Amino acid sequence: MTESAADGLVALQDPAYRQAVVDLLGVIAYGELSAFERLAEDARLAPTLDDKLAIASMAAAEFSHLAPLQERIVALGGDLPGAMAPFQRAIDDFHVHTSPADWFEGLIKAYVGDGLAADFYREIAAYLDPDTRDLIVASMEDAGHADFVVDRVRAGIADDPRLGGRLALWGRRLMGEALSQAQRVAAERDALSALLAGGVDRPGMDLAGIGRMFTRLTERHAERMSLLGLDS
Amino acid sequence: MTESAADGLVALQDPAYRQAVVDLLGVIAYGELSAFERLAEDARLAPTLDDKLAIASMAAAEFSHLAPLQERIVALGGDLPGAMAPFQRAIDDFHVHTSPADWFEGLIKAYVGDGLAADFYREIAAYLDPDTRDLIVASMEDAGHADFVVDRVRAGIADDPRLGGRLALWGRRLMGEALSQAQRVAAERDALSALLAGGVDRPGMDLAGIGRMFTRLTERHAERMSLLGLDS
Repeated sequence: MTESAADGLVALQDPAYRQAVVDLLGVIAYGELSAFERLAEDARLAPTLDDKLAIASMAAAEFSHLAPLQERIVALGGDLPGAMAPFQRAIDDFHVHTSPADWFEGLIKAYVGDGLAADFYREIAAYLDPDTRDLIVASMEDAGHADFVVDRVRAGIADDPRLGGRLALWGRRLMGEALSQAQRVAAERDALSALLAGGVDRPGMDLAGIGRMFTRLTERHAERMSLLGLDS
Repeated sequence: MTESAADGLVALQDPAYRQAVVDLLGVIAYGELSAFERLAEDARLAPTLDDKLAIASMAAAEFSHLAPLQERIVALGGDLPGAMAPFQRAIDDFHVHTSPADWFEGLIKAYVGDGLAADFYREIAAYLDPDTRDLIVASMEDAGHADFVVDRVRAGIADDPRLGGRLALWGRRLMGEALSQAQRVAAERDALSALLAGGVDRPGMDLAGIGRMFTRLTERHAERMSLLGLDS
Protein backbone atom coordinates (compact mmCIF):
# COMPACT_ATOMS: atom_id res chain seq x y z
CA MET A 1 0.00 0.00 0.00
CA THR A 2 1.41 3.42 -0.88
CA GLU A 3 1.68 6.11 1.75
CA SER A 4 -1.10 8.22 0.26
CA ALA A 5 -3.49 5.23 0.05
CA ALA A 6 -2.85 4.59 3.75
CA ASP A 7 -3.57 8.28 4.47
CA GLY A 8 -6.81 7.84 2.55
CA LEU A 9 -7.89 4.94 4.73
CA VAL A 10 -7.07 6.84 7.92
CA ALA A 11 -9.03 9.86 6.75
CA LEU A 12 -12.00 7.68 5.78
CA GLN A 13 -12.22 6.26 9.30
CA ASP A 14 -13.16 9.73 10.52
CA PRO A 15 -16.99 10.10 10.37
CA ALA A 16 -16.72 13.88 9.94
CA TYR A 17 -14.42 13.41 6.96
CA ARG A 18 -16.74 10.81 5.44
CA GLN A 19 -19.70 13.19 5.85
CA ALA A 20 -17.72 15.98 4.25
CA VAL A 21 -16.85 13.79 1.27
CA VAL A 22 -20.51 12.72 0.88
CA ASP A 23 -21.42 16.43 0.96
CA LEU A 24 -18.83 17.28 -1.65
CA LEU A 25 -19.86 14.42 -3.96
CA GLY A 26 -23.50 15.41 -3.42
CA VAL A 27 -22.96 19.01 -4.48
CA ILE A 28 -20.93 17.85 -7.49
CA ALA A 29 -23.65 15.35 -8.44
CA TYR A 30 -26.45 17.88 -8.19
CA GLY A 31 -24.34 20.31 -10.20
CA GLU A 32 -23.97 17.71 -12.96
CA LEU A 33 -27.67 16.81 -12.88
CA SER A 34 -28.54 20.50 -13.19
CA ALA A 35 -26.00 21.01 -15.95
CA PHE A 36 -27.64 18.09 -17.75
CA GLU A 37 -31.07 19.72 -17.47
CA ARG A 38 -29.86 23.16 -18.58
CA LEU A 39 -27.84 21.84 -21.51
CA ALA A 40 -30.83 19.79 -22.67
CA GLU A 41 -32.89 22.97 -22.47
CA ASP A 42 -30.24 24.93 -24.39
CA ALA A 43 -30.38 22.24 -27.07
CA ARG A 44 -33.84 23.55 -27.92
CA LEU A 45 -32.37 26.98 -28.71
CA ALA A 46 -29.78 25.52 -31.07
CA PRO A 47 -29.85 27.21 -34.49
CA THR A 48 -29.03 24.00 -36.43
CA LEU A 49 -29.47 20.26 -35.95
CA ASP A 50 -25.67 19.90 -35.77
CA ASP A 51 -25.56 22.36 -32.86
CA LYS A 52 -28.51 20.64 -31.20
CA LEU A 53 -26.75 17.26 -31.40
CA ALA A 54 -23.51 18.72 -30.02
CA ILE A 55 -25.24 20.26 -26.99
CA ALA A 56 -27.43 17.21 -26.34
CA SER A 57 -24.33 15.05 -26.41
CA MET A 58 -22.66 17.28 -23.78
CA ALA A 59 -25.79 16.95 -21.65
CA ALA A 60 -25.71 13.15 -21.89
CA ALA A 61 -22.00 13.20 -20.94
CA GLU A 62 -22.79 15.20 -17.78
CA PHE A 63 -25.44 12.67 -16.84
CA SER A 64 -23.03 9.77 -17.33
CA HIS A 65 -20.90 11.13 -14.46
CA LEU A 66 -23.69 10.52 -11.95
CA ALA A 67 -23.41 6.72 -11.70
CA PRO A 68 -19.81 6.63 -10.37
CA LEU A 69 -20.57 9.48 -7.93
CA GLN A 70 -23.62 7.58 -6.68
CA GLU A 71 -21.58 4.40 -6.25
CA ARG A 72 -19.03 6.20 -4.08
CA ILE A 73 -21.68 8.00 -2.01
CA VAL A 74 -23.38 4.67 -1.28
CA ALA A 75 -20.03 3.07 -0.38
CA LEU A 76 -19.53 5.86 2.18
CA GLY A 77 -22.94 5.13 3.73
CA GLY A 78 -24.99 7.84 2.00
CA ASP A 79 -27.55 7.86 -0.81
CA LEU A 80 -27.55 10.04 -3.93
CA PRO A 81 -30.80 12.01 -3.45
CA GLY A 82 -30.00 12.57 0.24
CA ALA A 83 -26.48 13.76 -0.59
CA MET A 84 -27.74 16.14 -3.29
CA ALA A 85 -30.68 17.61 -1.37
CA PRO A 86 -28.80 20.18 0.79
CA PHE A 87 -27.41 21.84 -2.34
CA GLN A 88 -30.50 21.88 -4.52
CA ARG A 89 -31.59 25.35 -3.42
CA ALA A 90 -28.26 27.12 -3.97
CA ILE A 91 -27.67 25.52 -7.36
CA ASP A 92 -31.27 26.08 -8.51
CA ASP A 93 -30.94 29.72 -7.43
CA PHE A 94 -27.73 30.06 -9.40
CA HIS A 95 -29.58 28.82 -12.49
CA VAL A 96 -32.60 31.06 -11.91
CA HIS A 97 -30.27 34.08 -11.62
CA THR A 98 -28.31 33.11 -14.72
CA SER A 99 -31.00 32.00 -17.13
CA PRO A 100 -29.52 32.50 -20.63
CA ALA A 101 -31.43 34.93 -22.85
CA ASP A 102 -30.26 33.28 -26.06
CA TRP A 103 -28.15 30.53 -27.60
CA PHE A 104 -24.83 32.36 -27.11
CA GLU A 105 -25.45 33.09 -23.43
CA GLY A 106 -26.28 29.40 -22.97
CA LEU A 107 -23.03 28.36 -24.68
CA ILE A 108 -20.94 30.68 -22.51
CA LYS A 109 -22.69 29.54 -19.37
CA ALA A 110 -21.95 25.89 -20.25
CA TYR A 111 -18.28 26.62 -20.91
CA VAL A 112 -17.47 29.28 -18.30
CA GLY A 113 -19.71 27.84 -15.56
CA ASP A 114 -18.53 24.25 -15.97
CA GLY A 115 -14.92 25.39 -16.28
CA LEU A 116 -15.15 27.34 -13.04
CA ALA A 117 -16.84 24.46 -11.21
CA ALA A 118 -14.24 22.01 -12.52
CA ASP A 119 -11.33 24.24 -11.40
CA PHE A 120 -12.88 24.71 -7.97
CA TYR A 121 -13.59 21.03 -7.32
CA ARG A 122 -10.14 20.03 -8.59
CA GLU A 123 -8.59 22.49 -6.11
CA ILE A 124 -10.54 20.90 -3.25
CA ALA A 125 -9.87 17.37 -4.51
CA ALA A 126 -6.15 17.93 -3.96
CA TYR A 127 -6.81 17.80 -0.19
CA LEU A 128 -8.73 14.50 -0.26
CA ASP A 129 -7.93 10.80 -0.15
CA PRO A 130 -6.64 9.47 -3.50
CA ASP A 131 -9.77 7.48 -4.50
CA THR A 132 -12.09 10.43 -3.93
CA ARG A 133 -9.64 12.73 -5.69
CA ASP A 134 -9.45 10.52 -8.80
CA LEU A 135 -13.23 10.19 -8.89
CA ILE A 136 -13.71 13.96 -8.75
CA VAL A 137 -11.07 14.62 -11.40
CA ALA A 138 -12.78 12.07 -13.70
CA SER A 139 -16.19 13.67 -13.08
CA MET A 140 -14.83 17.03 -14.18
CA GLU A 141 -13.57 15.85 -17.53
CA ASP A 142 -14.45 18.30 -20.27
CA ALA A 143 -17.39 16.86 -22.16
CA GLY A 144 -16.19 18.48 -25.40
CA HIS A 145 -17.52 21.89 -24.39
CA ALA A 146 -14.38 23.89 -24.94
CA ASP A 147 -13.62 23.57 -28.64
CA PHE A 148 -17.25 23.63 -29.72
CA VAL A 149 -18.18 26.70 -27.66
CA VAL A 150 -15.03 28.68 -28.52
CA ASP A 151 -15.62 28.01 -32.22
CA ARG A 152 -19.31 29.02 -32.15
CA VAL A 153 -18.84 32.11 -29.95
CA ARG A 154 -15.91 33.48 -31.98
CA ALA A 155 -17.91 32.98 -35.19
CA GLY A 156 -20.91 34.74 -33.60
CA ILE A 157 -18.80 37.76 -32.59
CA ALA A 158 -17.22 37.91 -36.06
CA ASP A 159 -20.75 38.11 -37.51
CA ASP A 160 -21.93 40.74 -35.03
CA PRO A 161 -19.18 42.58 -33.12
CA ARG A 162 -21.68 44.12 -30.68
CA LEU A 163 -22.29 40.61 -29.33
CA GLY A 164 -18.83 40.68 -27.71
CA GLY A 165 -19.70 43.47 -25.27
CA ARG A 166 -22.91 41.84 -24.12
CA LEU A 167 -21.27 38.43 -23.68
CA ALA A 168 -18.34 39.91 -21.72
CA LEU A 169 -20.85 41.38 -19.23
CA TRP A 170 -22.59 38.02 -19.11
CA GLY A 171 -19.31 36.26 -18.25
CA ARG A 172 -18.70 38.64 -15.33
CA ARG A 173 -22.23 38.08 -14.08
CA LEU A 174 -21.77 34.29 -14.18
CA MET A 175 -18.58 34.59 -12.14
CA GLY A 176 -20.26 36.83 -9.58
CA GLU A 177 -23.31 34.59 -9.14
CA ALA A 178 -21.13 31.48 -8.85
CA LEU A 179 -19.02 33.06 -6.09
CA SER A 180 -22.07 34.27 -4.24
CA GLN A 181 -23.74 30.83 -4.22
CA ALA A 182 -20.46 29.10 -3.33
CA GLN A 183 -20.09 31.38 -0.29
CA ARG A 184 -23.63 30.55 0.74
CA VAL A 185 -22.96 26.81 0.53
CA ALA A 186 -19.71 27.16 2.49
CA ALA A 187 -21.49 29.17 5.20
CA GLU A 188 -24.30 26.61 5.55
CA ARG A 189 -22.35 23.37 5.37
CA ASP A 190 -19.82 23.19 8.17
CA ALA A 191 -18.55 19.78 7.05
CA LEU A 192 -17.51 21.21 3.69
CA SER A 193 -15.72 24.19 5.20
CA ALA A 194 -13.94 21.85 7.61
CA LEU A 195 -12.63 19.87 4.63
CA LEU A 196 -10.70 22.89 3.43
CA ALA A 197 -9.41 23.60 6.94
CA GLY A 198 -7.85 20.10 7.11
CA GLY A 199 -7.60 17.71 10.08
CA VAL A 200 -5.09 16.19 12.48
CA ASP A 201 -3.86 13.80 9.80
CA ARG A 202 -4.60 15.94 6.75
CA PRO A 203 -3.02 19.20 5.65
CA GLY A 204 -5.53 22.03 5.26
CA MET A 205 -5.68 25.39 3.57
CA ASP A 206 -5.11 28.56 5.64
CA LEU A 207 -6.66 31.91 4.79
CA ALA A 208 -3.70 32.87 2.63
CA GLY A 209 -4.07 29.54 0.82
CA ILE A 210 -7.74 30.21 0.18
CA GLY A 211 -6.83 33.62 -1.17
CA ARG A 212 -4.28 32.10 -3.53
CA MET A 213 -6.87 29.55 -4.66
CA PHE A 214 -9.31 32.34 -5.59
CA THR A 215 -6.54 34.10 -7.48
CA ARG A 216 -5.92 30.94 -9.50
CA LEU A 217 -9.66 30.47 -10.16
CA THR A 218 -9.97 34.06 -11.35
CA GLU A 219 -6.92 33.75 -13.60
CA ARG A 220 -8.27 30.62 -15.25
CA HIS A 221 -11.66 32.27 -15.71
CA ALA A 222 -9.90 35.18 -17.45
CA GLU A 223 -8.05 32.71 -19.70
CA ARG A 224 -11.33 31.11 -20.75
CA MET A 225 -12.93 34.48 -21.47
CA SER A 226 -9.86 35.45 -23.50
CA LEU A 227 -10.07 32.22 -25.54
CA LEU A 228 -13.65 33.22 -26.36
CA GLY A 229 -12.39 36.61 -27.51
CA LEU A 230 -14.05 38.35 -24.53
CA ASP A 231 -12.76 40.82 -21.92
CA SER A 232 -13.06 39.43 -18.37
CA MET B 1 -25.96 -16.71 -45.61
CA THR B 2 -29.58 -17.14 -44.54
CA GLU B 3 -32.38 -16.44 -46.96
CA SER B 4 -33.49 -13.28 -45.14
CA ALA B 5 -29.95 -11.86 -45.06
CA ALA B 6 -29.76 -12.37 -48.84
CA ASP B 7 -33.12 -10.62 -49.21
CA GLY B 8 -31.70 -7.76 -47.14
CA LEU B 9 -28.75 -7.37 -49.47
CA VAL B 10 -30.99 -7.36 -52.55
CA ALA B 11 -33.27 -4.73 -51.00
CA LEU B 12 -30.29 -2.55 -50.01
CA GLN B 13 -29.09 -2.43 -53.63
CA ASP B 14 -32.23 -0.50 -54.49
CA PRO B 15 -31.53 3.26 -54.08
CA ALA B 16 -35.22 3.98 -53.35
CA TYR B 17 -35.20 1.40 -50.55
CA ARG B 18 -31.97 2.82 -49.12
CA GLN B 19 -33.46 6.32 -49.16
CA ALA B 20 -36.61 5.05 -47.45
CA VAL B 21 -34.54 3.38 -44.72
CA VAL B 22 -32.50 6.56 -44.20
CA ASP B 23 -35.81 8.45 -43.92
CA LEU B 24 -37.16 5.98 -41.41
CA LEU B 25 -33.99 6.01 -39.29
CA GLY B 26 -33.98 9.81 -39.53
CA VAL B 27 -37.51 10.18 -38.19
CA ILE B 28 -36.77 7.67 -35.42
CA ALA B 29 -33.56 9.53 -34.52
CA TYR B 30 -35.25 12.92 -34.40
CA GLY B 31 -38.03 11.38 -32.32
CA GLU B 32 -35.47 10.10 -29.82
CA LEU B 33 -33.59 13.42 -29.74
CA SER B 34 -36.89 15.23 -29.09
CA ALA B 35 -37.89 12.69 -26.44
CA PHE B 36 -34.53 13.34 -24.79
CA GLU B 37 -35.16 17.10 -24.73
CA ARG B 38 -38.74 16.77 -23.41
CA LEU B 39 -37.83 14.23 -20.73
CA ALA B 40 -34.98 16.45 -19.57
CA GLU B 41 -37.48 19.31 -19.39
CA ASP B 42 -39.95 17.13 -17.48
CA ALA B 43 -37.17 16.32 -15.02
CA ARG B 44 -37.43 19.94 -13.87
CA LEU B 45 -41.08 19.38 -12.87
CA ALA B 46 -40.23 16.30 -10.80
CA PRO B 47 -41.61 16.54 -7.26
CA THR B 48 -38.64 14.74 -5.65
CA LEU B 49 -34.96 14.19 -6.41
CA ASP B 50 -35.68 10.46 -6.85
CA ASP B 51 -38.23 11.26 -9.55
CA LYS B 52 -35.88 13.77 -11.16
CA LEU B 53 -33.13 11.16 -11.35
CA ALA B 54 -35.51 8.55 -12.79
CA ILE B 55 -36.70 10.87 -15.58
CA ALA B 56 -33.21 12.20 -16.34
CA SER B 57 -32.00 8.63 -16.64
CA MET B 58 -34.75 7.85 -19.18
CA ALA B 59 -33.71 10.95 -21.12
CA ALA B 60 -30.07 9.82 -21.20
CA ALA B 61 -31.20 6.35 -22.36
CA GLU B 62 -33.08 7.90 -25.30
CA PHE B 63 -29.99 9.85 -26.26
CA SER B 64 -27.83 6.71 -26.17
CA HIS B 65 -29.90 5.26 -29.05
CA LEU B 66 -28.72 7.98 -31.42
CA ALA B 67 -25.15 6.72 -32.00
CA PRO B 68 -26.14 3.33 -33.56
CA LEU B 69 -28.81 5.04 -35.71
CA GLN B 70 -26.24 7.56 -36.91
CA GLU B 71 -23.76 4.78 -37.73
CA ARG B 72 -26.33 3.00 -39.90
CA ILE B 73 -27.47 6.19 -41.63
CA VAL B 74 -23.85 6.99 -42.53
CA ALA B 75 -23.29 3.41 -43.78
CA LEU B 76 -26.27 3.90 -46.12
CA GLY B 77 -24.72 7.10 -47.51
CA GLY B 78 -26.65 9.66 -45.43
CA ASP B 79 -25.79 11.89 -42.50
CA LEU B 80 -27.68 12.22 -39.23
CA PRO B 81 -28.72 15.92 -39.33
CA GLY B 82 -29.71 15.59 -43.00
CA ALA B 83 -31.77 12.48 -42.30
CA MET B 84 -33.53 14.09 -39.33
CA ALA B 85 -34.26 17.47 -40.94
CA PRO B 86 -37.37 16.52 -43.00
CA PHE B 87 -39.15 15.39 -39.83
CA GLN B 88 -38.21 18.20 -37.47
CA ARG B 89 -41.31 20.26 -38.22
CA ALA B 90 -43.89 17.47 -37.72
CA ILE B 91 -42.30 16.21 -34.50
CA ASP B 92 -41.77 19.72 -33.11
CA ASP B 93 -45.44 20.47 -33.90
CA PHE B 94 -46.51 17.30 -32.10
CA HIS B 95 -44.62 18.50 -29.02
CA VAL B 96 -45.97 22.05 -29.23
CA HIS B 97 -49.51 20.64 -29.40
CA THR B 98 -48.93 18.25 -26.52
CA SER B 99 -46.97 20.33 -24.05
CA PRO B 100 -47.66 18.78 -20.61
CA ALA B 101 -49.32 21.08 -18.08
CA ASP B 102 -47.84 19.24 -15.10
CA TRP B 103 -45.70 16.36 -13.94
CA PHE B 104 -48.39 13.70 -14.48
CA GLU B 105 -49.16 14.79 -18.03
CA GLY B 106 -45.41 14.64 -18.74
CA LEU B 107 -45.20 11.11 -17.32
CA ILE B 108 -48.13 9.90 -19.43
CA LYS B 109 -46.76 11.52 -22.54
CA ALA B 110 -43.42 9.76 -22.01
CA TYR B 111 -45.07 6.38 -21.53
CA VAL B 112 -48.00 6.53 -23.96
CA GLY B 113 -46.18 8.51 -26.65
CA ASP B 114 -43.03 6.40 -26.62
CA GLY B 115 -45.10 3.20 -26.44
CA LEU B 116 -47.12 4.20 -29.49
CA ALA B 117 -44.01 5.21 -31.44
CA ALA B 118 -42.28 1.95 -30.50
CA ASP B 119 -45.28 -0.16 -31.60
CA PHE B 120 -45.54 1.73 -34.89
CA TYR B 121 -41.84 1.48 -35.80
CA ARG B 122 -41.74 -2.20 -34.83
CA GLU B 123 -44.68 -2.85 -37.18
CA ILE B 124 -42.82 -1.14 -40.04
CA ALA B 125 -39.52 -2.84 -39.11
CA ALA B 126 -41.11 -6.23 -39.85
CA TYR B 127 -41.05 -5.30 -43.57
CA LEU B 128 -37.36 -4.37 -43.65
CA ASP B 129 -34.03 -6.12 -44.12
CA PRO B 130 -32.89 -7.98 -40.97
CA ASP B 131 -30.07 -5.58 -39.96
CA THR B 132 -32.30 -2.54 -40.13
CA ARG B 133 -35.08 -4.40 -38.35
CA ASP B 134 -32.80 -5.43 -35.46
CA LEU B 135 -31.43 -1.89 -35.15
CA ILE B 136 -34.94 -0.41 -34.95
CA VAL B 137 -36.13 -2.98 -32.41
CA ALA B 138 -33.07 -2.22 -30.24
CA SER B 139 -33.70 1.55 -30.53
CA MET B 140 -37.24 1.04 -29.23
CA GLU B 141 -36.23 -0.76 -26.06
CA ASP B 142 -38.16 0.53 -23.11
CA ALA B 143 -35.86 2.83 -21.16
CA GLY B 144 -37.54 1.85 -17.89
CA HIS B 145 -40.53 4.11 -18.53
CA ALA B 146 -43.27 1.59 -17.99
CA ASP B 147 -42.93 0.45 -14.37
CA PHE B 148 -41.92 3.86 -13.07
CA VAL B 149 -44.74 5.74 -14.81
CA VAL B 150 -47.44 3.19 -13.97
CA ASP B 151 -46.41 3.28 -10.32
CA ARG B 152 -46.37 7.09 -10.09
CA VAL B 153 -49.60 7.65 -12.02
CA ARG B 154 -51.60 5.04 -10.07
CA ALA B 155 -50.35 6.55 -6.81
CA GLY B 156 -51.33 10.03 -8.06
CA ILE B 157 -54.86 8.91 -8.93
CA ALA B 158 -55.21 7.14 -5.58
CA ASP B 159 -54.34 10.47 -3.90
CA ASP B 160 -56.71 12.49 -6.07
CA PRO B 161 -59.37 10.50 -7.99
CA ARG B 162 -60.31 13.53 -10.15
CA LEU B 163 -56.86 13.29 -11.74
CA GLY B 164 -57.97 10.11 -13.55
CA GLY B 165 -60.58 11.89 -15.67
CA ARG B 166 -58.21 14.63 -16.77
CA LEU B 167 -55.41 12.19 -17.59
CA ALA B 168 -57.76 9.92 -19.60
CA LEU B 169 -58.65 12.92 -21.80
CA TRP B 170 -54.95 13.71 -22.09
CA GLY B 171 -54.22 10.16 -23.30
CA ARG B 172 -56.83 10.47 -26.06
CA ARG B 173 -55.43 13.80 -27.12
CA LEU B 174 -51.90 12.34 -27.36
CA MET B 175 -53.19 9.51 -29.56
CA GLY B 176 -55.05 11.95 -31.82
CA GLU B 177 -52.08 14.31 -32.25
CA ALA B 178 -49.72 11.39 -32.93
CA LEU B 179 -51.98 10.02 -35.68
CA SER B 180 -52.42 13.43 -37.23
CA GLN B 181 -48.66 14.12 -37.43
CA ALA B 182 -47.97 10.57 -38.66
CA GLN B 183 -50.43 11.08 -41.52
CA ARG B 184 -48.74 14.34 -42.40
CA VAL B 185 -45.31 12.67 -42.53
CA ALA B 186 -46.67 9.80 -44.65
CA ALA B 187 -48.28 12.28 -47.07
CA GLU B 188 -45.09 14.32 -47.45
CA ARG B 189 -42.48 11.56 -47.67
CA ASP B 190 -43.19 9.29 -50.63
CA ALA B 191 -40.20 7.09 -49.88
CA LEU B 192 -41.62 6.18 -46.48
CA SER B 193 -45.09 5.38 -47.84
CA ALA B 194 -43.48 3.26 -50.56
CA LEU B 195 -41.73 1.24 -47.83
CA LEU B 196 -45.08 0.08 -46.51
CA ALA B 197 -46.34 -0.67 -50.02
CA GLY B 198 -43.44 -3.10 -50.60
CA GLY B 199 -41.38 -3.74 -53.74
CA VAL B 200 -40.74 -6.37 -56.44
CA ASP B 201 -38.63 -8.42 -54.04
CA ARG B 202 -40.29 -7.38 -50.77
CA PRO B 203 -43.80 -8.10 -49.52
CA GLY B 204 -45.79 -4.96 -48.72
CA MET B 205 -48.87 -4.07 -46.76
CA ASP B 206 -52.19 -3.60 -48.58
CA LEU B 207 -54.93 -1.27 -47.36
CA ALA B 208 -56.54 -4.05 -45.33
CA GLY B 209 -53.14 -4.75 -43.77
CA ILE B 210 -52.72 -1.08 -42.84
CA GLY B 211 -56.18 -1.17 -41.29
CA ARG B 212 -55.25 -4.21 -39.21
CA MET B 213 -52.02 -2.49 -38.13
CA PHE B 214 -53.96 0.53 -36.84
CA THR B 215 -56.30 -1.81 -34.98
CA ARG B 216 -53.30 -3.41 -33.26
CA LEU B 217 -51.78 0.00 -32.42
CA THR B 218 -55.09 1.15 -30.93
CA GLU B 219 -55.46 -2.03 -28.89
CA ARG B 220 -51.99 -1.70 -27.43
CA HIS B 221 -52.62 1.96 -26.62
CA ALA B 222 -55.80 0.90 -24.76
CA GLU B 223 -53.78 -1.72 -22.83
CA ARG B 224 -51.27 0.92 -21.72
CA MET B 225 -54.03 3.29 -20.63
CA SER B 226 -55.67 0.46 -18.72
CA LEU B 227 -52.39 -0.38 -16.94
CA LEU B 228 -52.31 3.27 -15.83
CA GLY B 229 -55.83 2.85 -14.48
CA LEU B 230 -57.25 5.15 -17.19
CA ASP B 231 -60.11 4.78 -19.67
CA SER B 232 -58.95 5.01 -23.28
